[in-house]
Amino acid sequence: MIKHREPFKLACIQYRPVIGAVGDNLAAMEKRVREAHRAGARVMVLPELADTGYVFRDRAELADLASPIPEGRSAQALVALARELDIYVVSGLAEREGQRLYNSAMLCGPDGYIGTYRKLHLWDRENPLFTPGDLGLPVFETDLGRIGLAVCYDGWFPELFRTMALKGAELICIPTNWVPMPAQPPEAEAMANTLHRAAAHSNGIFIACADRIGVERGQPFIGRSIILGPDGWALAGPAPENEEEILIAGIDLDKVASTRALNAFNDVLGDRRPDVYGDPIVEPSTANSQPNERT
Amino acid sequence: MIKHREPFKLACIQYRPVIGAVGDNLAAMEKRVREAHRAGARVMVLPELADTGYVFRDRAELADLASPIPEGRSAQALVALARELDIYVVSGLAEREGQRLYNSAMLCGPDGYIGTYRKLHLWDRENPLFTPGDLGLPVFETDLGRIGLAVCYDGWFPELFRTMALKGAELICIPTNWVPMPAQPPEAEAMANTLHRAAAHSNGIFIACADRIGVERGQPFIGRSIILGPDGWALAGPAPENEEEILIAGIDLDKVASTRALNAFNDVLGDRRPDVYGDPIVEPSTANSQPNERT
Repeated sequence: MIKHREPFKLACIQYRPVIGAVGDNLAAMEKRVREAHRAGARVMVLPELADTGYVFRDRAELADLASPIPEGRSAQALVALARELDIYVVSGLAEREGQRLYNSAMLCGPDGYIGTYRKLHLWDRENPLFTPGDLGLPVFETDLGRIGLAVCYDGWFPELFRTMALKGAELICIPTNWVPMPAQPPEAEAMANTLHRAAAHSNGIFIACADRIGVERGQPFIGRSIILGPDGWALAGPAPENEEEILIAGIDLDKVASTRALNAFNDVLGDRRPDVYGDPIVEPSTANSQPNERT
Repeated sequence: MIKHREPFKLACIQYRPVIGAVGDNLAAMEKRVREAHRAGARVMVLPELADTGYVFRDRAELADLASPIPEGRSAQALVALARELDIYVVSGLAEREGQRLYNSAMLCGPDGYIGTYRKLHLWDRENPLFTPGDLGLPVFETDLGRIGLAVCYDGWFPELFRTMALKGAELICIPTNWVPMPAQPPEAEAMANTLHRAAAHSNGIFIACADRIGVERGQPFIGRSIILGPDGWALAGPAPENEEEILIAGIDLDKVASTRALNAFNDVLGDRRPDVYGDPIVEPSTANSQPNERT
């Protein structure tokens, strides 16, 4: 069913966007994409809101910086770069569509614009600024393989990875702006890394997370970009907490099927018991009453 | 809605069952439960198939060792111990019901037998031996709080934790016989620990995993029992790979709600987007919608 595909190199570009400086940010992104291309990468993943920065003073500032996808300035710059270099680019972008603002991720390739994902799970003060995602969980068929997209806090929801894996995703690219989690012990693995290693392993998918670094208007970010194989172990990274870095790893999507088969009897997707999981998921508002009696 | 509850101590008893030696195993379990009780523990979690061992030569050997729950020898020994010591005990047990054999976990307490969970996701050569679980995912209301059960490979399925959390579970107790995962780097955290830390964090639940140690008929087990808080960080453990140990940690179930609220805008359960996850996962039937009505 799945034809044999050539392995390719993927780059996660961990860098430091500057709030409001869209032109400078696009130039910085292009410079690093060209560097990753020279190193042989065919797929580039850039951070969340890579064109605008993250900590907007208010909705007006965000609205002024955001642009349409794919017609806008940021999207067009990346589409042109992907065409020129014969590469695929995933980037977080601030999207404006009419009066609505979305925290989006765009995928483009050698033939131009491919598609957009809009962040489903908005984090903290993104909530009053952005409209929650309304494009579902698309999985894009490309010449390289089937690629899904997510953004930052989306990764806290196991359903997202599972849904995309069941829709055929083999690689999920995640622009992110991870912030510190409460009670993180100083020497422990970042919880963001833990969650994605678990998601890669329990779904048998490649996951590439490109984070930003720096402190913006008082908000620190944690770096730790990472590229994960379908067994949940790192192929590259985690990158440092506060230094720019381009992680590069080889991706062989033909390993997805063999990794999912843990032994002669088990397959991480095939072993699911949807007959039971559906029973009886109720919404959290009523989940704290009479837990063992409902039907 | 949720009344204030007293914190309690929970013990995960990591030990080495001997295949086929049910009497000796029950004596070893009792000795360690009494030791944990002297240390102040109110809830005891024992490994998967703690009464029989794990690597059965064939179905006949398993059938001979397995016993009914709660009427059988193993269950009755633990029920008596829980009554005597005024404690709660969770243990993996080989269950026989008529011609069927289940890899089960039983919960009993100061007032006797409470309920049974039957492993939904069978691992490797368990498949030809055991019948897959047919009691759904029960969550048991106790004086301490709402407790869910799972067994070993069940922990590879994020839907299981999510379903129980949405049904109100605050603590999930997991008897396990973890085996090495493919490609585990020597110095890395055991993937079994990673998966449960992720599940604890992304659901805001306490998780207690009691593993066995030793090599049985050529099959090694990895120890690494662990008790996790609802933020996904270890309260105790991981225990050593190949030494017996009784892990003990304080559990304050009133921390579940506050930990789930990550900030003023976010709640790890409330932020779910079931409108999207369902697409295109076919919602399961309600065939198993009455998970465990026996009391």
